[in-house]
Amino acid sequence: MKPEYDLLIVGAGPAGLTASIYAARYNLDVLVLGAQQGGLITDAHKVCNYPGFPEIDGSSLGEKIKDHAVEYGAEVKMEMVDGKEKSDGVFAVKTNFGEEYKAKTVVLATGTERRKLGLEEEDEFLGSGVSYCATCDGRFFKDKVVGVVGGSDAAATAALYLSDLGEKVYIIYRRDELRCVEAWKNQVAGTDNIEVIYENEVASLRGGDNLEAVELTQSYKKSKELKVNGLFIEIGSVPNTDISENLELDVDKKGYIKVGDDQITSMDGVWAAGDITNNSNYFQQVITANAEGAVAAESIYKYLKK
Amino acid sequence: MKPEYDLLIVGAGPAGLTASIYAARYNLDVLVLGAQQGGLITDAHKVCNYPGFPEIDGSSLGEKIKDHAVEYGAEVKMEMVDGKEKSDGVFAVKTNFGEEYKAKTVVLATGTERRKLGLEEEDEFLGSGVSYCATCDGRFFKDKVVGVVGGSDAAATAALYLSDLGEKVYIIYRRDELRCVEAWKNQVAGTDNIEVIYENEVASLRGGDNLEAVELTQSYKKSKELKVNGLFIEIGSVPNTDISENLELDVDKKGYIKVGDDQITSMDGVWAAGDITNNSNYFQQVITANAEGAVAAESIYKYLKK
Repeated sequence: MKPEYDLLIVGAGPAGLTASIYAARYNLDVLVLGAQQGGLITDAHKVCNYPGFPEIDGSSLGEKIKDHAVEYGAEVKMEMVDGKEKSDGVFAVKTNFGEEYKAKTVVLATGTERRKLGLEEEDEFLGSGVSYCATCDGRFFKDKVVGVVGGSDAAATAALYLSDLGEKVYIIYRRDELRCVEAWKNQVAGTDNIEVIYENEVASLRGGDNLEAVELTQSYKKSKELKVNGLFIEIGSVPNTDISENLELDVDKKGYIKVGDDQITSMDGVWAAGDITNNSNYFQQVITANAEGAVAAESIYKYLKK
Repeated sequence: MKPEYDLLIVGAGPAGLTASIYAARYNLDVLVLGAQQGGLITDAHKVCNYPGFPEIDGSSLGEKIKDHAVEYGAEVKMEMVDGKEKSDGVFAVKTNFGEEYKAKTVVLATGTERRKLGLEEEDEFLGSGVSYCATCDGRFFKDKVVGVVGGSDAAATAALYLSDLGEKVYIIYRRDELRCVEAWKNQVAGTDNIEVIYENEVASLRGGDNLEAVELTQSYKKSKELKVNGLFIEIGSVPNTDISENLELDVDKKGYIKVGDDQITSMDGVWAAGDITNNSNYFQQVITANAEGAVAAESIYKYLKK
């Protein structure tokens, strides 16, 4: 352990790890602290759109990026940051292991969490029917019947995308009208194999090794059981804002950290990268997270050189 | 060949290919046209900062991304676009093979090309001593003495590569310190057969059929003449703006295409991604180019669905 690092990265997902790869290549002393090695992507049972790997499971991809960072000299520790403060231009953090670390600069790369339905079986069917990302997993439900939970733009676009691939798509939404933009509403209405089930919710999930059906809270066409092979839960994600709140950083109305082109936040010495920021047109992908991490590291290198 | 594509991508480097991966995953009919499969990255003999591949040659990385795109249904053709016009909301292009293609939307991902010194004899010695690509031409200078002009990462990595092959490498740089990352600086300093000539420039080139020497603007070790068999010019790049000029897109003062967060240009139906744009804080890397391509494809998918 070093008395003071050039760069402390909070979050060990793709964005944080990529920032550490670039920082290590710039010969900076860099430490990555994170709760989950590889971050949220480790939840994806298959990733098909990270260029160079036509098909890889999220956990392996996360590990490859972590190994890459370690090979070039980044320290990566699975510890969670409890608190953070800045004094005399140096940041100090404490972790859940009781360790203290100091650094000249910080990258926040704590990402987001998918909003979950909160069902008992939800985690059990993750990767065997339940998904939080149509772009990532839609292809695995070619010619299948799927449900999409939600009524937002994300839910509608997920349903439209899935309708191109699958046999049938049910949108299950608790309100009596979708809340997405008109264009999506019209598209949904004009798509033969999409059926919207209004004022209904998923009560539980059923199946063996794979998801086979959901139970609805209200009967639909005389049955509470709806047969589906997949269920896409598109009820949004929420940024992990504990630290940004603590540091009182500028955030947008949903809590995403506002950053400039160089990924710097409203606080001197603090950058942010990945899903937690308002950059990359809010398109939350491994490739965009990595790019933000790279840009942050380059900006930090220039900052420290000055 | 399709009568009309959803998306035509001009440029087969990482940005264009990644846009095609995402577009193909969105089930769009997508065609990629490019002069060089894999783009400029194919010139790099080693890429160490594309997360997931700790060390890979640029040519292999380009090929992997191209294979990925083709595997998901993108068509990739090695043709160059000669002209482009838009009428009734459809873009039509002609290529150097005399082919014509039509598409609803376009991504420009034509990247950059190497900057030249601007010396009178520069073109004359191209291929007989002068090169802009150490990876491509380094092997012709086995056991020879070569110069590398520049002080960037590209210059340092070229020099290191050439030092493995050649007898002696001079780096000729106009400033008093290399501006590459520390890791390369240390390697250059630790390599016996690399000598850096600071605060000096190449004034002219000398030789018969092949380059034999360069004349420096300032004396070095009491002579303005420096005997070299090869000269690698690594002084950066300029955007390939033929098409953006033709379409009269908004560009910045250096000619990089101005794009929004969604990578859209000033022209309806035209997006841009990669080194040719003003995004990603102008940090020109495979990872940032790929991210821009992904964001462009997502934006195009939404545009076409409306």
